[in-house]
Amino acid sequence: MKPVKLGLLGLGTVGSGTANVLKRNSDEITRRAGRGIEIVAAAGKNLDSHQCRDVTGMRLTEDAFSVVNDPQVEVVVELIGGTTLARELVLAAIDQGKHVVTANKALIALHGNEIFTRAQEKGVIVAFEAAVAGGIPIIKAIREGLAGNRINWVAGIINGTGNFILTEMRDKGRDFQDVLAEAQRLGYAEADPTFDVEGIDAAHKLTILASIAFGIPLQFDRVHTEGITGITREDVAYANELGYRIKHLGIARRTEQGIELRVHPTFIPERRLIANVDGVMNAVLVSADAVGPTLYYGAGAGSEPTGSAVVADIVDVVRAMTTDPENRVPHLAFQADTLADTTILPMEDVKTSFYLRLRVLDRPGVMADITRILASLDISIEAILQKEQDDDTTEADVILLTHEVREGNMIQAIREIEALETVKTPVIRIRLENLK
Amino acid sequence: MKPVKLGLLGLGTVGSGTANVLKRNSDEITRRAGRGIEIVAAAGKNLDSHQCRDVTGMRLTEDAFSVVNDPQVEVVVELIGGTTLARELVLAAIDQGKHVVTANKALIALHGNEIFTRAQEKGVIVAFEAAVAGGIPIIKAIREGLAGNRINWVAGIINGTGNFILTEMRDKGRDFQDVLAEAQRLGYAEADPTFDVEGIDAAHKLTILASIAFGIPLQFDRVHTEGITGITREDVAYANELGYRIKHLGIARRTEQGIELRVHPTFIPERRLIANVDGVMNAVLVSADAVGPTLYYGAGAGSEPTGSAVVADIVDVVRAMTTDPENRVPHLAFQADTLADTTILPMEDVKTSFYLRLRVLDRPGVMADITRILASLDISIEAILQKEQDDDTTEADVILLTHEVREGNMIQAIREIEALETVKTPVIRIRLENLK
Repeated sequence: MKPVKLGLLGLGTVGSGTANVLKRNSDEITRRAGRGIEIVAAAGKNLDSHQCRDVTGMRLTEDAFSVVNDPQVEVVVELIGGTTLARELVLAAIDQGKHVVTANKALIALHGNEIFTRAQEKGVIVAFEAAVAGGIPIIKAIREGLAGNRINWVAGIINGTGNFILTEMRDKGRDFQDVLAEAQRLGYAEADPTFDVEGIDAAHKLTILASIAFGIPLQFDRVHTEGITGITREDVAYANELGYRIKHLGIARRTEQGIELRVHPTFIPERRLIANVDGVMNAVLVSADAVGPTLYYGAGAGSEPTGSAVVADIVDVVRAMTTDPENRVPHLAFQADTLADTTILPMEDVKTSFYLRLRVLDRPGVMADITRILASLDISIEAILQKEQDDDTTEADVILLTHEVREGNMIQAIREIEALETVKTPVIRIRLENLK
Repeated sequence: MKPVKLGLLGLGTVGSGTANVLKRNSDEITRRAGRGIEIVAAAGKNLDSHQCRDVTGMRLTEDAFSVVNDPQVEVVVELIGGTTLARELVLAAIDQGKHVVTANKALIALHGNEIFTRAQEKGVIVAFEAAVAGGIPIIKAIREGLAGNRINWVAGIINGTGNFILTEMRDKGRDFQDVLAEAQRLGYAEADPTFDVEGIDAAHKLTILASIAFGIPLQFDRVHTEGITGITREDVAYANELGYRIKHLGIARRTEQGIELRVHPTFIPERRLIANVDGVMNAVLVSADAVGPTLYYGAGAGSEPTGSAVVADIVDVVRAMTTDPENRVPHLAFQADTLADTTILPMEDVKTSFYLRLRVLDRPGVMADITRILASLDISIEAILQKEQDDDTTEADVILLTHEVREGNMIQAIREIEALETVKTPVIRIRLENLK
């Protein structure tokens, strides 16, 4: 079957990230989607400055409408941002019966009602996973994964810039202006940071979340929006002292009187998982009647994280265009005839770090014996802790943390250590993972 | 359009939860699915002991095959567990061209390859979101939400019983056997806890996660599985001291040599979000090349949480059976003609708790004035903190945390407090949410 042909609008951060992910993972993506996917035309403002690593097969142009109108293009991917030109381009694509994928939260929050009505008339899909919380598949989770629930409320850290600033203020006791300047230097904040720090970006996203959670039209102008510019390091410090963290949350809550839509700095108890979402990361906490609380965490912005969500939407569209509607998503994620015969690694070849606990006789030379055995099997030590036992001063616990080592080597080392007459009980070993 | 007719196999915890969620939320579910859904027949072992709150319209029987064979039944929902009878029932349903939804991880892990092959031949869907991590839509997230990524590894707390035991051992310094007995009393652990504490249940789930993450067949017999029965409170305490937590993880990792599949107790740094997933909750951390790390958290078991995932699968199936394939999922989650005209609450009617910070003259009577104003507006105080200022002993900071109060009342209170001549600067106020 011929590949599906995409037209890409926008070659900035997200456009380049999307193009790069599609190229790099084309093999796996094809196995998942059941069909190849290629960008045949791409429009950007400045064609010399794009960050796509490989533009083979793409017609590059500065004329975005020429991409939408290109008869080859079956799916239009809108990544230029803004709400005027983007709206015109998206409506033009829909009018031509082309599916649309967009990452544009402002466009959906402000013009989504119009766009979706038009899409429905024309029988095309407009997909917008990347518009909220970047790479986190939160739209899919709420729209499909929680479809059995009555949703009570949604609370999200949905602006990475704001969360980075609040995290730095807390960790380093710094002032808002000071951290903002650093965020601008690092590229986390725009030269004009208004959209992020005044909560407008978060309000766009909250508008979308509330609509899909409660089944109400998009109503951006009804969101109460406060920024974080008034947060001082004194308040951050008092929050800490009281056992709270200050987070900039978007909250949509269903009450008997009506729906609350609000973006503002919020004290939340430090023991909540979402209170520990730091730096530029995003997280959305959803409270629903059947499932209870669920939380979705990940990168909320950036080239490839946002590209990840755009590509997921593209795969959804391709699956809908191509495959048997009743088997749109393959049971095991990849098309059944493309499952791979990859080796499963025997456990002795798996590499992890280890925690070891030994009970030893408290006498000279014991540690030397143990470290000699470890070294001879290529096992390097990250930390050692020795604990005298209250009840018996002739024995001690030795705790070791190792660096990564092949499991087979560790089994051999333990065998040799247990053979030492100074080691009194079997060695306790628990694997250690940094999960980085 | 006539409702879709389900046949339910199993009226135990999950079966009753599914039936109750479908009934209670039938209105919202119909708005999402585009069509009503009703259970027309249900089979259980002991019809007197089910926990369904409303069985109107259901034919109840002890004969599960009669439900599968019922000509009315279009979708079979298998919630009896086990792998022998369940396999026969599911294959019989597929052979009759009926879609299947199941929560049965053992069935999928052991017989999924056979079942999916048969389903594909017959052109039916077999959906199994509830088989892994209960109510968390993790199958959907990996299979669809991350479809653009090459997945590096998956690490999950995917057995709630085990996580409850490890959490209690850590929080209370108790022994494994002691906590296990309590978990059994609370109903978190079975009378025979082998499947949970020996890691077999987690290995079933990991088998499924690895398959959909890497595009490999289901290979339960290749999972290296260790339980938590050997974890002592000494090791839990040492982990703590070293800045780690012990969690029972299922890990599937892609390496150059092959794929690792393993379930075992694991030291993880306490600062990782997943290290702070406590009690019976589940979480799955996925590391992928484009999006980076994402985490999915929620209830991994229980009547309605698991029912939530079962119903999400049912809605997916109904959407595939019913709607235009290119608009399987409505743009705003609910069918466009069912969006609700719910009131958006004005901000002054929103109720939250508050953090207030005031700079006051450090003299008698000030606190009395403030608390009088708050009381007069129905604002009750949860905590007060008074801080003398180093630089100026005539002034002090007063920090107040309030209980929930209507925003309009708080605005009025702040106006009156700021009018006091003992209050020197505008009142700082930040809303506080418990997110429970």
